[in-house]
Amino acid sequence: MTHHAVCLVSGGMDSAVTLAEALAAGFTPHALSFRYGQRHAFELTAARRVCAQLGVEDHRIVELDLAALGGSALTDDIPVPKHRAEEEIGKGVPVTYVPARNTVFLSVALGWAEILGARDIYLGVNAVDYSGYPDCRPEFLEAFEALASVATAAAVERGERVRLRAPLLDLSKAEIVRRAKALGVDLAPTLSCYDPRGSAERPRACGACDACLLRQRGFEEAGLVDPGLAAS
Amino acid sequence: MTHHAVCLVSGGMDSAVTLAEALAAGFTPHALSFRYGQRHAFELTAARRVCAQLGVEDHRIVELDLAALGGSALTDDIPVPKHRAEEEIGKGVPVTYVPARNTVFLSVALGWAEILGARDIYLGVNAVDYSGYPDCRPEFLEAFEALASVATAAAVERGERVRLRAPLLDLSKAEIVRRAKALGVDLAPTLSCYDPRGSAERPRACGACDACLLRQRGFEEAGLVDPGLAAS
Repeated sequence: MTHHAVCLVSGGMDSAVTLAEALAAGFTPHALSFRYGQRHAFELTAARRVCAQLGVEDHRIVELDLAALGGSALTDDIPVPKHRAEEEIGKGVPVTYVPARNTVFLSVALGWAEILGARDIYLGVNAVDYSGYPDCRPEFLEAFEALASVATAAAVERGERVRLRAPLLDLSKAEIVRRAKALGVDLAPTLSCYDPRGSAERPRACGACDACLLRQRGFEEAGLVDPGLAAS
Repeated sequence: MTHHAVCLVSGGMDSAVTLAEALAAGFTPHALSFRYGQRHAFELTAARRVCAQLGVEDHRIVELDLAALGGSALTDDIPVPKHRAEEEIGKGVPVTYVPARNTVFLSVALGWAEILGARDIYLGVNAVDYSGYPDCRPEFLEAFEALASVATAAAVERGERVRLRAPLLDLSKAEIVRRAKALGVDLAPTLSCYDPRGSAERPRACGACDACLLRQRGFEEAGLVDPGLAAS
């Protein structure tokens, strides 16, 4: 019997490894990405490449115009912070936080899971080397599962509980890099940068935002070279 | 001091009365509607008229392509059930159910509330004369409030709890009709139909879907005439 899972895929390193974990666990993954008004749609190019590389056949990109509501450096004209010291990253919520983004993404994933008859949703959140986002923490995931258990017809009529699977939750960036190697995931097409430049087809990481710094540190600690999109 | 509230406005009777309740409670309402791939965008015309009638200055329509995921008579080519007997309506989840729709709408509302600094979200759900949707029940609203309390920076860093306000939750349709009259809400521009016809500018209700039947019964029981968009 085939087990289907919805997988949130941003195009970053973490979601690529998460998708590979879903495959390794025997699921047929259905990848979900969003065009949510992010300043750069480069990450969608990366998401498509990640899915192609891993042989995922079903990849949907949902249009969702969060930029119409404003309020984040990822969708507005607020500058993305650069070269922040290690001890600053993860202390407090940064301006790159998009209000309720993971709640919104998981809600859409929940709806799609119900349509597909899937009971598992994979997402690449990480509570160790993270940027300080409230919706990347275990208590958030637990509250969402509790909501899901009363939100859908599948749950209420047929008792089908949805399980959030966040295999990277407790891993450091270095451990994620090593996990990618162990699973045979090529990280070359992934893009973790909050402020990429170049073109949509040939994006380059900025090398200085929180996401770039965390990624660099992860590769350094793992003793590996980042095959990804080089900094400009 | 001005208190801001986000109000979900579908263009139906219930959300119009809910918006009027927010105004009556002294809030400055920020209305939120979605173009979510519904087969008929007539309801957005109705939503705009409702906001204009009530003098709401801030009304955003967010694009969200749920139709890309399929799975409902409101977004797919599945026929909307007609002329169902009174005892059938509300028994079981109908095909017009859009998986996780209220979860998605509330998630976006939560993000906007955080951007606005609003702590209140109004929505027109009703658990009495309703169509059997799981995400219109009190337990769903409570679970969403619990999620909101751990999902946003406002909640986690500053302890700002979001409250869902569903003033129609325990009212019958007849009571909602009477409440509209008491608040002076003109229901003429509202559209409650799942399967409207006519043009976007001059929509007409089908008069036979669950939503039309519930509305008709409400007006009959209230002893009032529906000033809304006439059945074809």
